[in-house]
Amino acid sequence: MNIVRVVNSDGQICFGVESKGEVHRIAGDIFDQFSVTDEVLEPVKRLAPLEPKQIYAIGLNYREHAAEMKSEVPEYPVVFTKSVTSVAHPNGPIRLPRHLHSDQVDYEGELAVVIGKVCKNVSADEALDYVLGYTCANDVSARDWQKVYGGGQWIKGKSFDTFCPLGPFLVTADEVPDPQILPLRTMLNGQIVQESFTGDMIFPVAELIAFLSGSTTLLPGTVILTGTPPGVGMAAHPPRFLRPGDEVVVDITGIGMLHNHIVSET
Amino acid sequence: MNIVRVVNSDGQICFGVESKGEVHRIAGDIFDQFSVTDEVLEPVKRLAPLEPKQIYAIGLNYREHAAEMKSEVPEYPVVFTKSVTSVAHPNGPIRLPRHLHSDQVDYEGELAVVIGKVCKNVSADEALDYVLGYTCANDVSARDWQKVYGGGQWIKGKSFDTFCPLGPFLVTADEVPDPQILPLRTMLNGQIVQESFTGDMIFPVAELIAFLSGSTTLLPGTVILTGTPPGVGMAAHPPRFLRPGDEVVVDITGIGMLHNHIVSET
Repeated sequence: MNIVRVVNSDGQICFGVESKGEVHRIAGDIFDQFSVTDEVLEPVKRLAPLEPKQIYAIGLNYREHAAEMKSEVPEYPVVFTKSVTSVAHPNGPIRLPRHLHSDQVDYEGELAVVIGKVCKNVSADEALDYVLGYTCANDVSARDWQKVYGGGQWIKGKSFDTFCPLGPFLVTADEVPDPQILPLRTMLNGQIVQESFTGDMIFPVAELIAFLSGSTTLLPGTVILTGTPPGVGMAAHPPRFLRPGDEVVVDITGIGMLHNHIVSET
Repeated sequence: MNIVRVVNSDGQICFGVESKGEVHRIAGDIFDQFSVTDEVLEPVKRLAPLEPKQIYAIGLNYREHAAEMKSEVPEYPVVFTKSVTSVAHPNGPIRLPRHLHSDQVDYEGELAVVIGKVCKNVSADEALDYVLGYTCANDVSARDWQKVYGGGQWIKGKSFDTFCPLGPFLVTADEVPDPQILPLRTMLNGQIVQESFTGDMIFPVAELIAFLSGSTTLLPGTVILTGTPPGVGMAAHPPRFLRPGDEVVVDITGIGMLHNHIVSET
């Protein structure tokens, strides 16, 4: 099912299940016991499908993206994080930072995995049992803060407010028996700029979870961005960074289409 | 005052204020309104003084530590994160990772700042108004995962379970009018291995908060580890990494003494 989080017409933030254009309220906790009620919600705003407990992201997880970034194919998953405050909502704005300034803001369309149960030291064989579901993500990146001013650490360039759009749905894992066969595209102003499929990941989802859980607890609500395929704006000739008025869509077949538009921070 | 978080004799986790050997229960929310009650708690275990919403850490923020790590003095604060699941408790164990293995686990004694109010785009002049208090931290680091296997990103080597001891107190900001005049020492098995003072920071606390809040929301409960002075085990000749049975103490005058011992993950 497609879990959504919305602001209802009464102003409340609710979880629901969207089906055939209707959203039915969820009772309970999506990370524990929950049921889908008969109550039809009247969403006035769609939110990211969860408030992440933590956001891990994986760098250079598609061979051709590693090549376009002039980076080696990594021996182990390259792990970084995005701030939990960087989450943005479907159809909401991505804000170009203007207080700390960047004119090199880039998109990265990615499949995101949501952990549903506490896990630690799990094997790749059992790893997918800990997945609640999948959603689309845009690992928005200020390349100057990521690459030049960050002292080699990517966090600052990855963590500005609105730099992690998620949604529109959290598609439960039962509907995605194999997360490695999903076509993934990113569109900039209607033009396809990234086109790949998740089978091209160097480290597949199950191996990422096993690795991240090594001697490290993953809590329910942990989100893992699994890396981006080739076609980022930084690698274009000349580089094409995001500008106010642009629209970016991340489209993963069976998972959803995540629309966001670009504005400047005020 | 010295805010503590403890497991009480009734099994409940409570916030309290410690004074003259007694702990009085706090009623309310330490990040909002709270009061200190007459009720005396009977702690059976001392916990880290909060569950961080997010943990930022600053690399290379003392000139001589940058030198011993053979790194340049940075132009901007070098920001990384530690997993929120890496928190360890005062007097509790630091576990050497054995599932993902490391034999290069190192200590880093640091002053930690706890943000008390939502802030974004604050100036250095007003930044300290957003501080709830200060505590001691040990930015435990698996140097091999940080430096060799992490693809240049430090997160994985910084985020194993128990790699962020915090405590024993959260000393409220009113008692620390100037966070840049605090003597800081780290002891390994009773021997002083780091001895410095917080005035040696390249980017003082106020500037760190201003920088981190640039185009980025900081939530109450955000913890900022402000960097470590020289004397880490990796820089010793020969390097001296942590071994089972070792005891590490981070001692910051006016803030507290944070004791932890080393065991192997089982």
